[in-house]
Amino acid sequence: MSYLSDIEIVQQAHLKPIVEVAMKLNVEESLYYYGKYKAKLNIHHLEDKEPSGKLVLVTAINPTPAGEGKTTTSIGLGDALNRLGKKTIIALREPSLGPVFGVKGGAAGGGYAQVVPMEDINLHFTGDFHAIGAANNLLAALIDNHIYQGNALNIDPRRVTWRRVVDMNDRQLRNIVDGLGGKTNGEPREDGFDITVASEVMAVLCLAKNITDLKERLGRMVVGYNRNDEPITAKDLNAQGAMAALLKEAIKPNLVQTLEGNAALIHGGPFANIAHGCNSLIATQTALKLADYVITEAGFGADLGAEKFIDIKCRSLNKSPDAVVLVATVRALKMHGGQKKADLETKNLDALEKGIPNLLRHIESITQCFGLPVVVAINKFPTDHEAELQLIRDKCRLHNVNVALSDVWAKGGKGGEALAKEVINLVEHGVPHFNYAYELEDSIETKIEKIVTRIYGGSSVSYTAKARKTIKKLTELGYHTLPICMAKTQYSLSDDAKRIGRPEGFDITIRDVKVSAGAGFIVVLTGEIMTMPGLPKVPSANSIDIDEDGKISGLF
Amino acid sequence: MSYLSDIEIVQQAHLKPIVEVAMKLNVEESLYYYGKYKAKLNIHHLEDKEPSGKLVLVTAINPTPAGEGKTTTSIGLGDALNRLGKKTIIALREPSLGPVFGVKGGAAGGGYAQVVPMEDINLHFTGDFHAIGAANNLLAALIDNHIYQGNALNIDPRRVTWRRVVDMNDRQLRNIVDGLGGKTNGEPREDGFDITVASEVMAVLCLAKNITDLKERLGRMVVGYNRNDEPITAKDLNAQGAMAALLKEAIKPNLVQTLEGNAALIHGGPFANIAHGCNSLIATQTALKLADYVITEAGFGADLGAEKFIDIKCRSLNKSPDAVVLVATVRALKMHGGQKKADLETKNLDALEKGIPNLLRHIESITQCFGLPVVVAINKFPTDHEAELQLIRDKCRLHNVNVALSDVWAKGGKGGEALAKEVINLVEHGVPHFNYAYELEDSIETKIEKIVTRIYGGSSVSYTAKARKTIKKLTELGYHTLPICMAKTQYSLSDDAKRIGRPEGFDITIRDVKVSAGAGFIVVLTGEIMTMPGLPKVPSANSIDIDEDGKISGLF
Repeated sequence: MSYLSDIEIVQQAHLKPIVEVAMKLNVEESLYYYGKYKAKLNIHHLEDKEPSGKLVLVTAINPTPAGEGKTTTSIGLGDALNRLGKKTIIALREPSLGPVFGVKGGAAGGGYAQVVPMEDINLHFTGDFHAIGAANNLLAALIDNHIYQGNALNIDPRRVTWRRVVDMNDRQLRNIVDGLGGKTNGEPREDGFDITVASEVMAVLCLAKNITDLKERLGRMVVGYNRNDEPITAKDLNAQGAMAALLKEAIKPNLVQTLEGNAALIHGGPFANIAHGCNSLIATQTALKLADYVITEAGFGADLGAEKFIDIKCRSLNKSPDAVVLVATVRALKMHGGQKKADLETKNLDALEKGIPNLLRHIESITQCFGLPVVVAINKFPTDHEAELQLIRDKCRLHNVNVALSDVWAKGGKGGEALAKEVINLVEHGVPHFNYAYELEDSIETKIEKIVTRIYGGSSVSYTAKARKTIKKLTELGYHTLPICMAKTQYSLSDDAKRIGRPEGFDITIRDVKVSAGAGFIVVLTGEIMTMPGLPKVPSANSIDIDEDGKISGLF
Repeated sequence: MSYLSDIEIVQQAHLKPIVEVAMKLNVEESLYYYGKYKAKLNIHHLEDKEPSGKLVLVTAINPTPAGEGKTTTSIGLGDALNRLGKKTIIALREPSLGPVFGVKGGAAGGGYAQVVPMEDINLHFTGDFHAIGAANNLLAALIDNHIYQGNALNIDPRRVTWRRVVDMNDRQLRNIVDGLGGKTNGEPREDGFDITVASEVMAVLCLAKNITDLKERLGRMVVGYNRNDEPITAKDLNAQGAMAALLKEAIKPNLVQTLEGNAALIHGGPFANIAHGCNSLIATQTALKLADYVITEAGFGADLGAEKFIDIKCRSLNKSPDAVVLVATVRALKMHGGQKKADLETKNLDALEKGIPNLLRHIESITQCFGLPVVVAINKFPTDHEAELQLIRDKCRLHNVNVALSDVWAKGGKGGEALAKEVINLVEHGVPHFNYAYELEDSIETKIEKIVTRIYGGSSVSYTAKARKTIKKLTELGYHTLPICMAKTQYSLSDDAKRIGRPEGFDITIRDVKVSAGAGFIVVLTGEIMTMPGLPKVPSANSIDIDEDGKISGLF
């Protein structure tokens, strides 16, 4: 049996003009077009509407190299709900440009559950990330210019923490020395670049309620320290107005469509380790005003993605999910049970059974810690064996967990109807007893310990001396009431990527802590986090091409 | 008397939906909208049309700190021609983002001769420059990744000539060392960033005829040398397809409007020293297909701008200007005559008379070297004295030169009618005897010498040993048949910025030579050229702001 590639499916699809998609939501008057198939929404027009939709969070087990299909499931579930007569919008993250040129593969769903126009979405889209990069780099230029022009703020050039960004996988820029070349060319210092999605400006844009809030958050961002060890903010440099002007359009959510012509708001995409990994608050809020059901996702597995979605984003959104979908695949669960990637097509009920506890751990977090109704979505792969699918179903039922097979990759919305019915049932009849994992009033250490024990299933937390010192300092500066943003490996519930499955009784080591005061969270680092990817030996850029008609090939 | 600021005029203006502007050109079916007031044109729809319009080049005397108003004059002249019943399109360059945050002031005309929406045009516009930056930086990442992954091409890391870019005034990035941080983080080498407009990708985009030509040019770009001293091109790295994919939309010209609702194609904006300083060939070509008259401009004074327009762009365009407008102001001519900037409002016929020879030198180049009909446009300032205006007119008439007063800053198109009538007269009754300044078959040295003697009025050319050596090398490599792109100070006809007015009998020193093989010219450097500006002590970014309705202030 052979399948069409994602780009083949997309290039055969018949797209509706975006105005037709908008008309179903009654927002055709609020469109700011980017060509015929993309538009931004002028959210001012919606100010008086109540966000009354139901919110469904799609999350997953700990990711494996086998792939779980969270985005694909989100898209297919949205299409399925629309098929069942529920007016549904999916609210997803924008993909980053840099990785497109590294390893082949886009970030707009797959198979018959994709958002389109996918080439545009994966390339510059509506320019949001470029605007974020420009705002980030304007601030960087203002910092170094301030130092160069006399340094009235007495900024310590050795302690500038604000880095420049580029939306490219470019390891050469990770660590640099800039300001070289003598007196007229700046002041030499150690510096470096991150990929744009790692910029705090990205996290700020994704949590801002409006332009005023955006400016306030931008102004609060800490860019370094002066020689008296006091934090210097973007506001000290008068940067927030110009930065917000650069983000004038970027703050508006982007409307596109699924292959089945349903509305998708794709907006924002912060890193899921050093940031919170969710689409923008404005897009989610907008979707809740326009639809009965809003499907959204969060980065990585539930230990990072769902936890941050709830403890960071929901606090700002002032709303908790009405239901949670936890995505798993036979393949990924077998990897959690120890099966090698090369052998994933081989039936292995033993490995699967060993891997399922990873799934169960996340279910416990969602139901017992957060008090939310959950359904497991088994995202079907063509190579799955029926006995394997049945084993997952049996295990879920044994633990009284709702479960549904999702076949949206092969069948689009029709393949998601069983899942959609479970979701409707949860939303209409579930009884949430919602809790955060911690309270904002908790100390920084207590917050961390609650996340580790309640969400990860760990037993203790250790701190390096550096982390202890920084926690003390941040508490003195008054940042201790902010929520926590854990930066931990996504591959394990623990802080050791190799401990797959369901590790128990582990200790988590907190290596360092920093504040993202604009985004409004404390980043807690449990290991080295790579904020600038590199390209592989044979980058996909080598095989990307475009013909005279503008048709792109080799991208996916 | 008090005047409205540029942004006040613009914010009071009533813009037409861009579709109405397009309908006058019968291209409403070819629009790709960016909101209501900006669009890209799908030029495929126009493939079969002949470019039959008349081409008018607007150029100027050597620039001074007083300002000449070339863009303002171009816009006002276009409006005036439309008022007189000639279907006219202005084809201008896109402004760069970085400088907006340095010194206050946009690059979209002034007074009542502006293009709108000017805030958008000066900020991200339609994202072209971000796309160019991404394409440039993808190539940079591919080069360093190639070296890192084994360096099969044997690239000499000390001789990578391809630099990264950012659209920001950021002196800190002029000279850097990157690839630091040990084995997994690249290979340390000296490097640096330019501002995006200085990227060869910008020049390539602006000279490409179509996507196929774009890819060929991108592939020809030299990025460095291997250890055998042979050039390495972007094609050797298989980069041109992916780069062109990033430029899919950027290659399409942007349609906006003047304050009087006439069509303006604003597209591309390469540096005017190390590149050719003109808007895109595609936009000019498109305008010539749609209008009776096309008004375009070239960077800096006629010695650089007009010369490169003719010797570089016109060779690719396969068309020479039908008329040339040379812009001068009383203020600027007085500065050429030695008057200080602080005293410019004081009447000074003596200084003016001393400055006018700068104007006359450019007229000689245009008429005697290029054989083109010319009219002088005196761009009126409110502080001009009538006797001064009269002196310029008298001097022009004495030398049999057409001259017209242009008052478009204060009066819009109506203030440009006298100039427009002169232009119509030249186009309809002028007898061009067109010549290039040199032939492509000339040696590199002969080409340089012809430019210096015929256009600058210099008497000799000297070469550094380095320049001699590079010329020899480029000749061996077969690049000697390319046109020349002089990189010289814009402030003087000579290579010494202080020699204002009309210097005579001077020598020009050629310090270095390099090839822009993709753009298709040899860059000849007569001094240090700054390819990355810095911010001033008080950057305009400090006072830029945006309110909750998205209204920007402090930008201009």
